[in-house]
Amino acid sequence: MKAGIGRQVQISVIGRGVDASPDSMVLADEVGRLLALRGATVVCGGLEGVMEAVCRGAKSVGGRTVGILPGSDPKAANQWVDVPIPTGLGHARNAIVVKAGAAVIAISGAYGTLSEIGHALSEHKPVIGLKTWRLDPPDDTGSGMVLAATPEDAVNKAMAAASRG
Amino acid sequence: MKAGIGRQVQISVIGRGVDASPDSMVLADEVGRLLALRGATVVCGGLEGVMEAVCRGAKSVGGRTVGILPGSDPKAANQWVDVPIPTGLGHARNAIVVKAGAAVIAISGAYGTLSEIGHALSEHKPVIGLKTWRLDPPDDTGSGMVLAATPEDAVNKAMAAASRG
Amino acid sequence: MKAGIGRQVQISVIGRGVDASPDSMVLADEVGRLLALRGATVVCGGLEGVMEAVCRGAKSVGGRTVGILPGSDPKAANQWVDVPIPTGLGHARNAIVVKAGAAVIAISGAYGTLSEIGHALSEHKPVIGLKTWRLDPPDDTGSGMVLAATPEDAVNKAMAAASRG
Amino acid sequence: MKAGIGRQVQISVIGRGVDASPDSMVLADEVGRLLALRGATVVCGGLEGVMEAVCRGAKSVGGRTVGILPGSDPKAANQWVDVPIPTGLGHARNAIVVKAGAAVIAISGAYGTLSEIGHALSEHKPVIGLKTWRLDPPDDTGSGMVLAATPEDAVNKAMAAASRG
Repeated sequence: MKAGIGRQVQISVIGRGVDASPDSMVLADEVGRLLALRGATVVCGGLEGVMEAVCRGAKSVGGRTVGILPGSDPKAANQWVDVPIPTGLGHARNAIVVKAGAAVIAISGAYGTLSEIGHALSEHKPVIGLKTWRLDPPDDTGSGMVLAATPEDAVNKAMAAASRG
Repeated sequence: MKAGIGRQVQISVIGRGVDASPDSMVLADEVGRLLALRGATVVCGGLEGVMEAVCRGAKSVGGRTVGILPGSDPKAANQWVDVPIPTGLGHARNAIVVKAGAAVIAISGAYGTLSEIGHALSEHKPVIGLKTWRLDPPDDTGSGMVLAATPEDAVNKAMAAASRG
Repeated sequence: MKAGIGRQVQISVIGRGVDASPDSMVLADEVGRLLALRGATVVCGGLEGVMEAVCRGAKSVGGRTVGILPGSDPKAANQWVDVPIPTGLGHARNAIVVKAGAAVIAISGAYGTLSEIGHALSEHKPVIGLKTWRLDPPDDTGSGMVLAATPEDAVNKAMAAASRG
Repeated sequence: MKAGIGRQVQISVIGRGVDASPDSMVLADEVGRLLALRGATVVCGGLEGVMEAVCRGAKSVGGRTVGILPGSDPKAANQWVDVPIPTGLGHARNAIVVKAGAAVIAISGAYGTLSEIGHALSEHKPVIGLKTWRLDPPDDTGSGMVLAATPEDAVNKAMAAASRG
């Protein structure tokens, strides 16, 4: 009897898709590589930009990647996604992307990323921000995010938070 | 043949539920009242806090209210909701709350509201902010929200945006 | 202070959209009319065929109608829908259509209706079948549905089940 | 550069959870084993009964398994799930379970399975039935399912349908 692939810690990585900046994609590639080296499965939205870069980084060292897609066609996943999960839910799939990780790393990001940060914080999920939205809450709500300075810092903080979860 | 209630412009109002501040509930009550007087149906998440206050305001002048609930029990809706829509989707129902309005008014708010602002901006839905999150994007993404100073200002801007939509 | 529209019992009506047979639309129109006369709000998927006929029937006597749409555009609702709820969830919205009613009436129907019957029975929601799928379960699962012979019979059974719920 | 796990054909297997019959679990175990030997990833709802048996069968020969869960806690997945995807969507996650496969095998099943069969057929996804619901449609809708007599027959038909997809 073979063990097969087995279960790993899952970390969600969120960030801008179309029009992601080259800088954010360099960060995402490195985050993906470091997560895979630490034995974590990368979960993301499965499309282009930061989502593609983080998967490419993970696969460059033999890591494992899951893409939770907004549409119904698994072929929409970028080529570095091992397990495409088409949902047909549109933007509502963002809530699932963050649920599927024990911690969330947000890299840069546009409005979709903002919704994912909100969903993750709503569920008391640790969120590590790397050059992403700065948020100033209206009430006594904390900003919620932990800031990271580098990909290595972000991965260390995410893995530590996931092990506490 | 009677006309029945007919279709109205729908405006989504989002904001903090549990632990909403008294100030934010006063604002929400007035927003609900003004929206109803302008002939708009109020759509919200159906629970307490800002959601309850905006419904109460709308009903105080005979308005119409819809509550899109996270759970499966319609009885969880606050007493001022005319049409409860239990979804069973949890936080993912936030994406539907903002879809159901032609414009969105965000009043104060915690993390759930943040996710709703993100969803609304993702879909190019007009978002009017009233003492809510201040957002500083990482890239060239605009902040996206239009700020309002008072309930009247917020309602004017939402109704104008809805009529352009 | 005016009371506005207030809350009503909600009954979900499901059935074939495109390519609904003329016979099924006659049944749906009558079901909608009778539900409205009994003071129930009609909830449906908001599109054409049986969904349109049941709304038209309800509106013919001044009733109230809610359409929970698969797409993101409220304009896709048929003209007899008072409150359109665009979800952007695609077929997954079927689970919400049945949740929103205290009982479900299934009229004719294709595969989407079959999924709705399954969702409703999963949640122990009363399902009244009117010339719809006949279901033969594999195990000791009951068929689950209560059969009705006429629109009047279906509405009587749905209203009775809703009042017990 | 290592290749990592790479992408495989994904086949969804649906069936009764709690109270699954011993016979249906024997069938599911064998279906899982055969799918894994054919190089397919097994996708299921991640819980007990048929879902657990099909994962156990796949893992017995080193296969790969994905569990798309109704709740928000990945720990609810059975022990044979490699990749748990908590959705928080409740029964609406059934629509995603069937989307994630290129074909669907239905084994026995209660009402949740019925909703999944409906969702799959709605999307023109091939559905192979193994001792599951018998369905008699009201109109000219075909029954939609292809029947299989044995686990081997079901897997052959699912893999053939997936390769045509």
